[in-house]
Amino acid sequence: MPRIDGRRNDELRPTRITTGFQEFAEGSVLVETGLTRVVCAASIEERAPLFLRGQGKGWVTAEYGMLPRSTLTRTSRERSSGSGRTHEIQRLIGRSLRSVTHLDKLGERTVTIDCDVLQADGGTRTAAITGAYVALYQALLGLVRHGVLLRVPLAGSVAATSVGLVGGETMLDLCYEEDSRAAVDLNVVMTSGGEFVEVQGTGEEHPFSRAVFDEMLDLAAGGIRELSAAQEEAVRQLTAG
Amino acid sequence: MPRIDGRRNDELRPTRITTGFQEFAEGSVLVETGLTRVVCAASIEERAPLFLRGQGKGWVTAEYGMLPRSTLTRTSRERSSGSGRTHEIQRLIGRSLRSVTHLDKLGERTVTIDCDVLQADGGTRTAAITGAYVALYQALLGLVRHGVLLRVPLAGSVAATSVGLVGGETMLDLCYEEDSRAAVDLNVVMTSGGEFVEVQGTGEEHPFSRAVFDEMLDLAAGGIRELSAAQEEAVRQLTAG
Amino acid sequence: MPRIDGRRNDELRPTRITTGFQEFAEGSVLVETGLTRVVCAASIEERAPLFLRGQGKGWVTAEYGMLPRSTLTRTSRERSSGSGRTHEIQRLIGRSLRSVTHLDKLGERTVTIDCDVLQADGGTRTAAITGAYVALYQALLGLVRHGVLLRVPLAGSVAATSVGLVGGETMLDLCYEEDSRAAVDLNVVMTSGGEFVEVQGTGEEHPFSRAVFDEMLDLAAGGIRELSAAQEEAVRQLTAG
Amino acid sequence: MPRIDGRRNDELRPTRITTGFQEFAEGSVLVETGLTRVVCAASIEERAPLFLRGQGKGWVTAEYGMLPRSTLTRTSRERSSGSGRTHEIQRLIGRSLRSVTHLDKLGERTVTIDCDVLQADGGTRTAAITGAYVALYQALLGLVRHGVLLRVPLAGSVAATSVGLVGGETMLDLCYEEDSRAAVDLNVVMTSGGEFVEVQGTGEEHPFSRAVFDEMLDLAAGGIRELSAAQEEAVRQLTAG
Amino acid sequence: MPRIDGRRNDELRPTRITTGFQEFAEGSVLVETGLTRVVCAASIEERAPLFLRGQGKGWVTAEYGMLPRSTLTRTSRERSSGSGRTHEIQRLIGRSLRSVTHLDKLGERTVTIDCDVLQADGGTRTAAITGAYVALYQALLGLVRHGVLLRVPLAGSVAATSVGLVGGETMLDLCYEEDSRAAVDLNVVMTSGGEFVEVQGTGEEHPFSRAVFDEMLDLAAGGIRELSAAQEEAVRQLTAG
Amino acid sequence: MPRIDGRRNDELRPTRITTGFQEFAEGSVLVETGLTRVVCAASIEERAPLFLRGQGKGWVTAEYGMLPRSTLTRTSRERSSGSGRTHEIQRLIGRSLRSVTHLDKLGERTVTIDCDVLQADGGTRTAAITGAYVALYQALLGLVRHGVLLRVPLAGSVAATSVGLVGGETMLDLCYEEDSRAAVDLNVVMTSGGEFVEVQGTGEEHPFSRAVFDEMLDLAAGGIRELSAAQEEAVRQLTAG
Repeated sequence: MPRIDGRRNDELRPTRITTGFQEFAEGSVLVETGLTRVVCAASIEERAPLFLRGQGKGWVTAEYGMLPRSTLTRTSRERSSGSGRTHEIQRLIGRSLRSVTHLDKLGERTVTIDCDVLQADGGTRTAAITGAYVALYQALLGLVRHGVLLRVPLAGSVAATSVGLVGGETMLDLCYEEDSRAAVDLNVVMTSGGEFVEVQGTGEEHPFSRAVFDEMLDLAAGGIRELSAAQEEAVRQLTAG
Repeated sequence: MPRIDGRRNDELRPTRITTGFQEFAEGSVLVETGLTRVVCAASIEERAPLFLRGQGKGWVTAEYGMLPRSTLTRTSRERSSGSGRTHEIQRLIGRSLRSVTHLDKLGERTVTIDCDVLQADGGTRTAAITGAYVALYQALLGLVRHGVLLRVPLAGSVAATSVGLVGGETMLDLCYEEDSRAAVDLNVVMTSGGEFVEVQGTGEEHPFSRAVFDEMLDLAAGGIRELSAAQEEAVRQLTAG
Repeated sequence: MPRIDGRRNDELRPTRITTGFQEFAEGSVLVETGLTRVVCAASIEERAPLFLRGQGKGWVTAEYGMLPRSTLTRTSRERSSGSGRTHEIQRLIGRSLRSVTHLDKLGERTVTIDCDVLQADGGTRTAAITGAYVALYQALLGLVRHGVLLRVPLAGSVAATSVGLVGGETMLDLCYEEDSRAAVDLNVVMTSGGEFVEVQGTGEEHPFSRAVFDEMLDLAAGGIRELSAAQEEAVRQLTAG
Repeated sequence: MPRIDGRRNDELRPTRITTGFQEFAEGSVLVETGLTRVVCAASIEERAPLFLRGQGKGWVTAEYGMLPRSTLTRTSRERSSGSGRTHEIQRLIGRSLRSVTHLDKLGERTVTIDCDVLQADGGTRTAAITGAYVALYQALLGLVRHGVLLRVPLAGSVAATSVGLVGGETMLDLCYEEDSRAAVDLNVVMTSGGEFVEVQGTGEEHPFSRAVFDEMLDLAAGGIRELSAAQEEAVRQLTAG
Repeated sequence: MPRIDGRRNDELRPTRITTGFQEFAEGSVLVETGLTRVVCAASIEERAPLFLRGQGKGWVTAEYGMLPRSTLTRTSRERSSGSGRTHEIQRLIGRSLRSVTHLDKLGERTVTIDCDVLQADGGTRTAAITGAYVALYQALLGLVRHGVLLRVPLAGSVAATSVGLVGGETMLDLCYEEDSRAAVDLNVVMTSGGEFVEVQGTGEEHPFSRAVFDEMLDLAAGGIRELSAAQEEAVRQLTAG
Repeated sequence: MPRIDGRRNDELRPTRITTGFQEFAEGSVLVETGLTRVVCAASIEERAPLFLRGQGKGWVTAEYGMLPRSTLTRTSRERSSGSGRTHEIQRLIGRSLRSVTHLDKLGERTVTIDCDVLQADGGTRTAAITGAYVALYQALLGLVRHGVLLRVPLAGSVAATSVGLVGGETMLDLCYEEDSRAAVDLNVVMTSGGEFVEVQGTGEEHPFSRAVFDEMLDLAAGGIRELSAAQEEAVRQLTAG
């Protein structure tokens, strides 16, 4: 049985990565997957955060927000910013980006990636990671072009997608309606080299077996291979540009 | 002498009003004037605010925010939301919209217009007002189409622009660089009928004469006539759509 | 038809400026206009704010508050301090004072003017500006008397009043009851030289024509001439004292 | 050896209680003792606080604040409001007033007494209690005059003063300079009947003996007898008025 | 090579579950694993949270805190409560407990489990889950004993532990020192039936392969079987008690 | 007539002081009096607070908290931390400890004593003081043993208890139920030398006479002698240990 939007269970939504969305940012990406749209902007500050000062290393961190009407009904600004969910997502994005960054080669700098959701139809945090990587790349490429760094201090790319167990079937890249009916929800972050950076699975309403878990990890790996290719293409255009 | 971007002193920047930018909102507009870009989303709640309950009247209010990298250097989320400037702008937008709304014909509803700046190159608050009016119209038109209201409860349109005294000359619709060099800064909100809704002039660094003030008001009136026409065209397409 | 308190439309309420109200402050004024009473206290700090450090310039800023029972019914402390209205007023007072201050001649100092409303019967923000100027003068005069500055670094005085359109008539210096019935509300800040520093007009419920606007500006200019004279007298006594 | 301002050790500073200071409040007092000046305003709300609803009883509570320039150097608004000291004082004033109020005869009402310090030269919390009692009386007298209550539901009056051990001598009603040099600091709240409501003694820097404590309590009792007489006179004029 | 404290790689630290630690709570547990000690207290409120009102269902939620000196160096109270980490942990504990609770059979009640860390030597969040389940059981057993519920509305038990990759070896139940040197960190929550409730793996500094992941899941499953047995024993004593 | 728990009016509840409760703290005590249990942990920071920098002196301060289920019904974390009561208690504990500390011999250090209530059955603030002294002693003894200080910079010990007027009788060391029925409530802090550090008596519902006050002070002095002995024994074991 086809999915709500006609996709196969192992099929991603149409994904698009547009660079240069915010002209003033050091790196800027609009990432779209289906109706989900997230703006990722990279800002470079010429100093490390306090806890790293004087160690010759840099840091990459992220912030996440939602425009009030990114959602079906309005989300108030307070609810959308101070919440536990927001903190959880920000920390996830930050860890994912740092997992592929040579912080010691970045120098005493802080890169902040702002991920702001224009439209939310499920999978905003994984889309944010996928887009944030490209924004980070663009910002670091700028440092190389200005002669500040010798090469882009990244060890491969990182991307993310979600998988779920919906109506007894495992499905890739859930849209909001699928997500709200999912018994199990899994977010997976992987490198272009096929290794895991983060695995967050939750079966609050339906604990799940090892077999289902294995199946979901396979689906995720397949989706992330496609996303990595899309990132590679966007990066290729940046370096060609 | 031409302006920084080649415009005449009485010339607006290229202005574009795109409806339907956020698909889940009751009304949604992307307004662009030059590099300044603001998303305006209208949300309708089926109850009046507390202070109006039981009076058979509705309310229109606004919130304003800036994405951290809408600005040349990153603006932290806290600085961009809780500040006095933000409160001032939100109140201005709300008053402007209410000035043309028949609150008694709106019924016990609250319309909230979220104005979020994607890119800030001067004039974000006036652009927000110009766009917010169209988002409000679209949301109210929806109520008419759903048979909730008999007609759109608006008494004409409202738009806004800025004028400044820069290098001794009065200029219309300042971009950021002009704005930061302006001795006098004037924001004007007017109806399509040519009446004033708000006039906020400040000459912190250079008090100004009545003659200069009159000249600036004339420039503003001219600009707003053009903006009203652009709004009218956007509204025409909505009603035709 | 006379006004609610018997005044002519172009008549100010009785105004009194008393210096030395708070004995510990560098400058201190109680300003009364009708039943409205505001305490203005100037405090000098021997360093510039962060954003000006090292530029050899100073800063003048203001804070505004209301005692809970300054109003007809009690205003809670939270509502009276964190609100958008408070921020708006503080910024207005600060800009007005800076417009007549030679910040470069002030040296790396910050003058903070606290304006606290003891009793609120309309026009508290304009009364605050009128009083704050005198408190500022007194504090700066102290610097001169202590040999810190050669002369008071002020370029003329600044004062403010309100004008409104009430029942179809334009009126000067509205009391609370007039203000709450006004269709248009205009606050004007002017220098003793007759130039505008701030013009804030709002016709939320009734957009207004250019003709009405011109009439209101004339009324304001007349009122401010009287207020400037009262300030001049207060300042004269300080310098004589 | 006489005190810094020439007083005897058992002598209060000149004390003055002026009623009607804030015209809009149900009860309003300016209390002055030496240079210390506190405004006390009583507000009546026609409902009991949540924790008392439906019990037929009322409540008396207090809030305390300081104008930023009530002090020798400016106290920032945040420091002056949210602090532990402020909470401590508010609770003390509230308990003191409730100790003489028949809450069951007050009906389901809340009386809030705002005590705002215009000028602080030591003893602001005890002055606030002394003044707050009179403001409370005036507000309750208003309820009697409007026929809401049969009689003023107060069981005698309550007043307060401070005593300290300064330079080895016990002294009544310390001014700021004495207070800052005091080894022991005692605040005493007593009824007109000579009973204790609150005794708060602290010898942070110098633990004190029972003998010194007894001597201080005697001094306080004497001072409070005088303050009770001043309150009685103020109340007499209110009832005569 | 043995671990820092002499354990085998697949060995839990000594674990102890003591019920009745806080005498006033409906359910109360002190859970200890090695030096880590967490107090879990269950409180029952006779109403559902707002978002569930009127649906005949209940809710289980959790809060998490650390005493300032639970840690090697003092953690300030603000840092320990408002942080993103705290929100993340609270949400994890709540989801874990709800996964085994029949919320529809709980009735319109809210059970809050407070998990407060007395001493933190790694694994506080997983210890909290293991202990919280027993505290929840005790509270619900009380409802059964008071005749409010027919049976304890729990579908099996839930417990948690951590696994890590340290020095190239996978290890069960990391203490703080192991945790701080771990390249990969995995928290696993499982039911007594051997199904997964939550899997949270993060390899911020070292992305990890599927093979390592599988090995870690096996280790976790073994540890949780032991923890389930300890819970069962504690529950057995409660029901016998 | 015996008391609710069979004690005589001048009898303390069973009191126990256990050191070393939190293994990571420089000083750590669990103090129990009846069902009341408080954890006190001393942390040493190698710098003085800002207001003392460069004076060669140290500082002792305290924080106080309650676990949510220390109380009969759950106390929310916000209510338990930000409240006026909490601030009042923290300040009281801090002053009490400083009264016996030679701050000038402590060096530029800050000792923070965290007092966290595990179970609250009345008298938590006085138990906290009694326990905090021992935790402070232990932390300072550590400095001596590490050769940082020559001797423990304490001038005798400090302890505290409560006394109340319940049902017309004065009673020592009130439990929660007695406390909630007390007409007068007195907290007394004394040194081992028999001098007063703090006396806080409040008769909100029943003002009290000098005779009753004297009787309560006598009861307190007797109780504190016993508590001092218990502290002395705990300290003796620490120094022997």
